[in-house]
Amino acid sequence: MSLENTSVNKSYGGWTKHYSHHSEVLNCDMRFAIYLPPQTANGQKVPVVYFLSGLTCTDENFIQKAGAQRMAAELGIAIVAPDTSPRGDDVADDEAYDLGKGAGFYVNATQAPWNRHYQMYDYVMNELPQLVEATFPVTDHRSIFGHSMGGHGALVMALRHPDRFKSVSAFSPIGNPVDCPWGQKAFTAYLGEDRSTWAEYDASLLMRKASGAVPALVDQGEADNFLAEQLKPETLEAAAKASGYPLELNRREGYDHSYYFIASFIDDHLRFHAKHLSA
Amino acid sequence: MSLENTSVNKSYGGWTKHYSHHSEVLNCDMRFAIYLPPQTANGQKVPVVYFLSGLTCTDENFIQKAGAQRMAAELGIAIVAPDTSPRGDDVADDEAYDLGKGAGFYVNATQAPWNRHYQMYDYVMNELPQLVEATFPVTDHRSIFGHSMGGHGALVMALRHPDRFKSVSAFSPIGNPVDCPWGQKAFTAYLGEDRSTWAEYDASLLMRKASGAVPALVDQGEADNFLAEQLKPETLEAAAKASGYPLELNRREGYDHSYYFIASFIDDHLRFHAKHLSA
Repeated sequence: MSLENTSVNKSYGGWTKHYSHHSEVLNCDMRFAIYLPPQTANGQKVPVVYFLSGLTCTDENFIQKAGAQRMAAELGIAIVAPDTSPRGDDVADDEAYDLGKGAGFYVNATQAPWNRHYQMYDYVMNELPQLVEATFPVTDHRSIFGHSMGGHGALVMALRHPDRFKSVSAFSPIGNPVDCPWGQKAFTAYLGEDRSTWAEYDASLLMRKASGAVPALVDQGEADNFLAEQLKPETLEAAAKASGYPLELNRREGYDHSYYFIASFIDDHLRFHAKHLSA
Repeated sequence: MSLENTSVNKSYGGWTKHYSHHSEVLNCDMRFAIYLPPQTANGQKVPVVYFLSGLTCTDENFIQKAGAQRMAAELGIAIVAPDTSPRGDDVADDEAYDLGKGAGFYVNATQAPWNRHYQMYDYVMNELPQLVEATFPVTDHRSIFGHSMGGHGALVMALRHPDRFKSVSAFSPIGNPVDCPWGQKAFTAYLGEDRSTWAEYDASLLMRKASGAVPALVDQGEADNFLAEQLKPETLEAAAKASGYPLELNRREGYDHSYYFIASFIDDHLRFHAKHLSA
């Protein structure tokens, strides 16, 4: 797990950095971004929020466009933004934007040819945080959030491992992937035709039977082109209601699926995580 | 000057928009970005700050990466971000990144083949603000700022037209282009070998003999790779001292030439402009 630092940019008194490393779990080289707030300059350890990006994104989109560093610096939180899939010439791919590279869906693939590299669930849940916590001045207080496909990933991980995260949030998450075109296509490819294996990767199904409860915040733009067909926040909301899950879901009039939406509410999400990380 | 709106994204209660239009001055189609803060929703007119981008940039870099919309929304300021050169298949270009498309240097070219389209000075000074003020809910209170090549452009325009701008600021500007490789290459191509024509596009030479005085703020990262060879803030500072020009120049330890630097200090610059725009 040797790390190579590929860039450093001072940001709001802290440091935005990119690293590459070999991932054993994914069987390829990977990149991730980390923001270390100014509080770490003297060795102080800070809590970490992981951000999982959406379809077609890399480790760069969020860290360049979300404007998260300002509030992370103020709150004293590190942010880690991994890539969205395994990468490299020998990694299976598809010409569509919603399958293969850039579209790992944060699952552990069981089907060939995907299962050789597409183990994003284990990478984000285990290998990456172990590497981060062994390398950087961070505590083991973790929260997780994401956008769209990454919102799905963040919710699923927090719902399945409530002991690992203090809070979870999402912008425009794919809330019920077993019942939307993006999710059905990806799960069929990565997990196979047997739908009984899909349930452990569906936030609405998991939330409906959740026992341990990581506080959850979701923001959803009402002018989002993917709202009705792909995202289905109403399903997530119904699941939370059924199980009494602590979900706050805000519908935002006029906002779309873009990073302009994320940037508009990023401060709210970081404050939400900071409150729970320090509790 | 018919305008085509190519995108709208709600941002911090306001709207980030992109437009294309035919420029008479540049003799080609152009794109620009505008941020309209929430105060404009009910027809209220707001002041405008123009942002001029650096080498290789388009109308997109600043509006996506600088995180300016948050503070612009709070202060009630519109932001206009034009492209950095004329565009199109029949526009002269060069394979280097620092000449031709993406590198207009905000001058009116006098030399062939550049003079057919490269009239960025007139475009930014006249045609664009006329279009903006005829179209959007903005007042005629204008300020201007920019980055690197765009910081040069902003300073030159404010120094030559103190009646047109309430304030000017720059991140890492090319402070003395007649005496650095970027400036000498571009000015030779666009303006010709006769260096007497270069002086009207050099912020240090203009500031040294400035009479009217638009308040100026400059931030410069000390870890900027281009600092000593291309940017020369010390020349700008000496010029301000010689003429008593109201220049505040801050050197920022550890910051580089990137948008991470711009984002870190964007709030200071917008507050500076807001103070002068409302005075």
